[in-house]
Amino acid sequence: MTASPDKIDIAEKFGQFSEQWQPKIVADLDDYEIKLVRLEGDFVWHQHEDADEMFFVIDGTLRMDFRDRQVHVGAGEMIVVPRGVEHKPFAAAECRIMLLERKGVPNTGDGPASDRTAAPERL
Amino acid sequence: MTASPDKIDIAEKFGQFSEQWQPKIVADLDDYEIKLVRLEGDFVWHQHEDADEMFFVIDGTLRMDFRDRQVHVGAGEMIVVPRGVEHKPFAAAECRIMLLERKGVPNTGDGPASDRTAAPERL
Repeated sequence: MTASPDKIDIAEKFGQFSEQWQPKIVADLDDYEIKLVRLEGDFVWHQHEDADEMFFVIDGTLRMDFRDRQVHVGAGEMIVVPRGVEHKPFAAAECRIMLLERKGVPNTGDGPASDRTAAPERL
Repeated sequence: MTASPDKIDIAEKFGQFSEQWQPKIVADLDDYEIKLVRLEGDFVWHQHEDADEMFFVIDGTLRMDFRDRQVHVGAGEMIVVPRGVEHKPFAAAECRIMLLERKGVPNTGDGPASDRTAAPERL
């Protein structure tokens, strides 16, 4: 029998790391990973041809840039970027995010790696 | 080209309904649905043989009962119930939850329907 699971305290998990742009896996759900990440500054334009991606803002403000507009996402708000849509996360000050996407989706998308490319680590 | 998505304001979405135990779909991610639900009182014991299920507490306190213990999950905390694990959500006072699970997973699990069985509606 599978053991009953513990709860996951998001604030406590964020207290375990300080580096930015480095996703940390805190839970698995089927073939998906629930990750936490600290963002500040600019990411790279990218897209995922075969994967949707959820950004839930824990605190701070995420600005999600699209080719046609920018969307500001505050604490308690989220945005789901559909597959195939180019996007670029940006945060003027540090923003803490819960991410959800299928395992193995590269954080910088389908293009070449960049200095922002990072494999998620398990907390 | 797929249009750039709007953000989703969780508090604003909860303002659109007041009924309890009736999940509301607010976003899709691949073959998954992100749902909001208001809980109060007792649910039914159930399990999902082939699906993990995430409960993220927006406010209030969720008590997740397992056969071997109870886990109290507060605002900003979450719990992922693995497939095959019997569980029963309970909330002493209204608790607002964000749920994530694969589309088509019955809320009352693999057993017979009950008066808590409800198909999710799209907000």
